[in-house]
Amino acid sequence: MAEFDLIDRIRRRAVVRDDVALGIGDDAALLRPPPGRELAVATDALNAGVHFPADTAPEAIGWKALAVNLSDLAAMGATPAWCTLSLSLPEPDPAWVEALAEGLLALAARHGVSLVGGDTTRGPLSLCVTAIGHVAPGRALRRDGARDGDDIWVSGTLGDAAAALQAWERSAPVPEALRERLERPSPRIALGAALAGRAHAAIDVSDGLLADLGHVLRASGVGAELAVDALPASDALRAAVPVPQARRALQAGGGDDYELCFTAPAGVRAGIEAAAREAGVAATRIGRIVAGEGIACRDADGAPWQPPGAGYEHFGRG
Amino acid sequence: MAEFDLIDRIRRRAVVRDDVALGIGDDAALLRPPPGRELAVATDALNAGVHFPADTAPEAIGWKALAVNLSDLAAMGATPAWCTLSLSLPEPDPAWVEALAEGLLALAARHGVSLVGGDTTRGPLSLCVTAIGHVAPGRALRRDGARDGDDIWVSGTLGDAAAALQAWERSAPVPEALRERLERPSPRIALGAALAGRAHAAIDVSDGLLADLGHVLRASGVGAELAVDALPASDALRAAVPVPQARRALQAGGGDDYELCFTAPAGVRAGIEAAAREAGVAATRIGRIVAGEGIACRDADGAPWQPPGAGYEHFGRG
Repeated sequence: MAEFDLIDRIRRRAVVRDDVALGIGDDAALLRPPPGRELAVATDALNAGVHFPADTAPEAIGWKALAVNLSDLAAMGATPAWCTLSLSLPEPDPAWVEALAEGLLALAARHGVSLVGGDTTRGPLSLCVTAIGHVAPGRALRRDGARDGDDIWVSGTLGDAAAALQAWERSAPVPEALRERLERPSPRIALGAALAGRAHAAIDVSDGLLADLGHVLRASGVGAELAVDALPASDALRAAVPVPQARRALQAGGGDDYELCFTAPAGVRAGIEAAAREAGVAATRIGRIVAGEGIACRDADGAPWQPPGAGYEHFGRG
Repeated sequence: MAEFDLIDRIRRRAVVRDDVALGIGDDAALLRPPPGRELAVATDALNAGVHFPADTAPEAIGWKALAVNLSDLAAMGATPAWCTLSLSLPEPDPAWVEALAEGLLALAARHGVSLVGGDTTRGPLSLCVTAIGHVAPGRALRRDGARDGDDIWVSGTLGDAAAALQAWERSAPVPEALRERLERPSPRIALGAALAGRAHAAIDVSDGLLADLGHVLRASGVGAELAVDALPASDALRAAVPVPQARRALQAGGGDDYELCFTAPAGVRAGIEAAAREAGVAATRIGRIVAGEGIACRDADGAPWQPPGAGYEHFGRG
């Protein structure tokens, strides 16, 4: 395999940033971090057959491998700057790798992120991306900052990716809008950055709303009341899953939406709505933080609602 | 799997550094880079059956996954500070993961490196480590700095890891000292840091001396003359491979030694020898940089010596 030619082609397409002193091609990349900021570092691997069907288009795989990491930075309120890609694949396949790089670099370009290094190795198809960004000291959105009385918010809509995955697993047709959400999630970078210093806590919805909100509650030592009928649903989801109970199950339990779930004091509602408008994404209040522990779900009539499962644990995914 | 308990146990053992504002357990780690330094970022994956035999002890796997990345930082002259680990494994096995973490954290502790994040996913056994360090601006050891007339140096000894791998592949007994070099390489951090600003170019020997020196030559637009009889060999290698021609083949072509190969002007020889003594590792002059391209190997009689192969390309490893 003409590995070095391929790396050269990828290098030429990477975003150029003044703060990259040395990018792809040496033992390590050399970066100049902005003075007075904290670094935010996230790393996540995607494995074929676990995190994506093995026959997913390479562009979508590349996009998603970066997206899940940028989503982690968004959930910290950080601004992304650089990333690395470690790629394992069974056989040298330059055209396939180039298409994968195309997908990753398209998302990277959208957020001004420079691919600065990585490696390619032989092995089962797998991608590991590390994304590095920065945030003002003390303003990052941690999981442990939720407080009794906070509103609970979620960005965008929930359940689309889970509906696409469910259809795919049942060999049913997958509506394009839902497939797009599963394959090319949009990390909520602009919203996350606008929430830094405003919201108390945040997480991105990768394992499912109930599971991810649960992480925030445990880290913060609080509980939550959730209005399941308030969970935002896309038109595509309503059309694909018309039965409300089945839809709620996907919205509350399904993963892979990469929306932000965050908590904030009631006093900043107007500011959050303005920030969301500015970022071009909806923000919906879906409940509130209470003293205690666990999540109490209620429907529009105030009746208790039983969640369909505990969401995904990392080892249970796929 | 009690994933979160395990992560908690690993977190409690990680090196504590003042510059880690937030470590394992949130969407991203938060780090405070030292002012006025460049960041050096390296990422490398190890796959079972490709980079290590699947039955390697988990402690050795964890050690090596970090070692190969710290070696990349050493080859830049950078001081390591933080790392992340992304781990894929087929079945939840907390005791095995804990042993793996033990190996990684033992090497991390030796160099004051803090494990600040990562993830665990289901999939074929694979580790992806990202290591981040820092170096004074303009002093990093790049591949493209070698100049006509430079001495070529190598640290430590060459061929031990390749001899161990060869014995293992032939189901022959593997001498302990050689196995140790293959399984627990020592990244030459102190030497690399001391060379920053002194040496002109450096690389670590992961794919084999000829292959890795070749990268430096191509990046720098120069050639090299190499004295193959000058390649340093350990006593264990001499005992295991007494035939000089077979030994030279392992030393020149075999990978996985994680020594530093570097070039420097003749005027700094004394300084380099002093730096190596200080770092507790040998440094041996093995040739010199010349105008032109390629590597001309000669034995002690001045006769041309034919390299046994082109070393490992990344996709040919294992």
